[in-house]
Amino acid sequence: VALSQETIMVREIEEGTLLSVPGLRGAALSSGIKETGRPDLALVVSDEPVAAAGVFTRNALPAAPVKLCRRRLAREPRGRAVVINSGNANAMTGDRGDRDAAAMAERLEERCGGPALVLSTGIIGVPMPMDRILGGIDRAAAELSPDAGEAVAEAMLTTDTRIKTCAVEVKLPADDGAAPARVVVGGVAKGSGMIHPDMATMLAVIATDAPLGQDAICSTLRAAVQRSFNEITVDGDTSTNDTVLLLAGGAQTRPILADTPRHAVLQAGIDVVAEQLARMIVADGEGATRVMELRVTGARGDDEARLVARTVTDSLLVKTALAGGDPNWGRILAAAANAGIPLRQEELSLSIGGHAVFAGGGPIGAHEQEIAKAFSDAEVVVELDLGRGDGRARMLTSDITKGYVEINAEYHT
Amino acid sequence: VALSQETIMVREIEEGTLLSVPGLRGAALSSGIKETGRPDLALVVSDEPVAAAGVFTRNALPAAPVKLCRRRLAREPRGRAVVINSGNANAMTGDRGDRDAAAMAERLEERCGGPALVLSTGIIGVPMPMDRILGGIDRAAAELSPDAGEAVAEAMLTTDTRIKTCAVEVKLPADDGAAPARVVVGGVAKGSGMIHPDMATMLAVIATDAPLGQDAICSTLRAAVQRSFNEITVDGDTSTNDTVLLLAGGAQTRPILADTPRHAVLQAGIDVVAEQLARMIVADGEGATRVMELRVTGARGDDEARLVARTVTDSLLVKTALAGGDPNWGRILAAAANAGIPLRQEELSLSIGGHAVFAGGGPIGAHEQEIAKAFSDAEVVVELDLGRGDGRARMLTSDITKGYVEINAEYHT
Repeated sequence: VALSQETIMVREIEEGTLLSVPGLRGAALSSGIKETGRPDLALVVSDEPVAAAGVFTRNALPAAPVKLCRRRLAREPRGRAVVINSGNANAMTGDRGDRDAAAMAERLEERCGGPALVLSTGIIGVPMPMDRILGGIDRAAAELSPDAGEAVAEAMLTTDTRIKTCAVEVKLPADDGAAPARVVVGGVAKGSGMIHPDMATMLAVIATDAPLGQDAICSTLRAAVQRSFNEITVDGDTSTNDTVLLLAGGAQTRPILADTPRHAVLQAGIDVVAEQLARMIVADGEGATRVMELRVTGARGDDEARLVARTVTDSLLVKTALAGGDPNWGRILAAAANAGIPLRQEELSLSIGGHAVFAGGGPIGAHEQEIAKAFSDAEVVVELDLGRGDGRARMLTSDITKGYVEINAEYHT
Repeated sequence: VALSQETIMVREIEEGTLLSVPGLRGAALSSGIKETGRPDLALVVSDEPVAAAGVFTRNALPAAPVKLCRRRLAREPRGRAVVINSGNANAMTGDRGDRDAAAMAERLEERCGGPALVLSTGIIGVPMPMDRILGGIDRAAAELSPDAGEAVAEAMLTTDTRIKTCAVEVKLPADDGAAPARVVVGGVAKGSGMIHPDMATMLAVIATDAPLGQDAICSTLRAAVQRSFNEITVDGDTSTNDTVLLLAGGAQTRPILADTPRHAVLQAGIDVVAEQLARMIVADGEGATRVMELRVTGARGDDEARLVARTVTDSLLVKTALAGGDPNWGRILAAAANAGIPLRQEELSLSIGGHAVFAGGGPIGAHEQEIAKAFSDAEVVVELDLGRGDGRARMLTSDITKGYVEINAEYHT
């Protein structure tokens, strides 16, 4: 990724993972939470405590690990060790769930040092099998390695069909006397890209060895999430467990402050990792075969654009039309008009794959073959201009297929 | 249906239809809108002009026939003839669509007298084949009969699998010197019971020979819709075409005024017809195999209860769990907690088929077989108490199955 045409400042690391970040080690194993025997527990541990921030679900009944991370990061925005389990979300589990999440953090701190953070995903409303989990933490803590990046990614999966991890190298510019420096941003995520996930919670951990100051780490993470995970239909306010963590620190460079050139470049690197993880999630949506990128412009403000974009990409008829590869654009306009915004037919324009389908108050009726082809590609760009202002937003959504229904109807408690 | 134990005031008419209402005739035929050759055009005509009211979609881009009906009923709340077509929604069709809807009303008034009203359902964004439609109106007008009730119901269908029509007899009590009187309420509807319908718009016509005063007809219809069509997931604010019409008048009794005993009984009769049609719609949801009735109590006000009920019944994970017959109640609580209400885990209680599954801040873990059985029946009642107040609401939803995806993915423009 080139930020300017002259100098490449953010470069993808081939086969990079979260553990491409210097100073991080990890381990993953099957602790027995999943009856299938598949990997279900992972540790990520930094050589030393680093700055940490989190963005969490807005669901009114957050899971126990979400409450634990929120409380700990509010008290002290630092972290050293993260335990991630799949197979059980530790949500709707009452006081016992809170005690179980605390016990996981305590055991992790005993084995790997702290502060410790906890992420869980899986079934809701079932008590955690703590003997297996604590035993799993003990065993994994003895196996930490910088080579476990893909294993960590795998142990987070539930209905995902592939691992989601990547890393970039970021060249920090010289700044106020500090020499240029190379740092790494890596990330890992799980999630199935559909709305209202429960067994399909979205979790992500992003890390960098660049030392972000405490003043900057929260806003940096929020900005990256806003441009990535909040622009896919796995959005932050649905599941009980959705969490994105950022760990930053370790490299022998001076702390990076907000509003500096170094920070701008590092933000770009973090944004790239977040965007790549978000795209991986939506493309691996449960049963998904196709991704639609919806760009809404001409709204009265970005919030209005976002509301319209979300209403369209949450529409079941739009998602099933996408599954059928059918450019049934009437469904897109009908869904947009259902967002509670007083749209006017004569101000709207809609294009699919760069071809206008609706403008000037009526259908265009041209390029039908090109439009049908664009809508049946693996990725289709749909542009909707509301003709009311300068607000804009973007959302990525996958399609809803019979495979989605199969996964979610036939998953039994 | 007995309103009191002593006197049956509202009684179902066996094989009743909209045209069971004295003074109504109808006709239906294949005009050629649908390429399949199935019936696609129906007329309903009253012997004389009667009072009329409508409730319409809140979609910001209503279809041309919705705009026409709104405008005409605002000017004069009366109607005599209704034309209903399926196969084309006349939505997103610009100025031409408005002219086409007006031409349909004009032709109908020429043939059958007015005022005329127009209802359309079907594909969005395609111009109406006006030659066929006008020819169809001409032919149907020559065939009006009181025996065409089922044919009218059939000509309205799109993806529906069965007709939806019923009627009741209502015994109006003596009132202020007027003798008791028997009147009929009949109705017809189409709709496939899913969210964001487009080819699956919800349309309904309810009629009675009881003469409702102009002061009472609008509020009577709104009350009936609130307790029926607005409590299923085909709700009034989604499609471009959703319409419910009420026609009232003709019987030789004195006008029925609001807030009288006669009005209360007639309202009950209209409510019964609306409720029956709504249940028929949700049970015939595209691909549906099962209906869930969600009762939310303990909210801070009915609006809050309604918001939670809609959030849960719109949840794709809840609807697919229902398809699987799987009492995955964690999904129900997680969806409720996503409504933006500050719920507290320890105040919630949830039961399925009368058996408690969550209370006192945690899972109950009893009666698992009975709960699984209740959730796999054709109809399941789920009760969610929020523990915050006295507000209550009810929603009916069908399940989302592979059949739904098949219908909506494989329907091509």
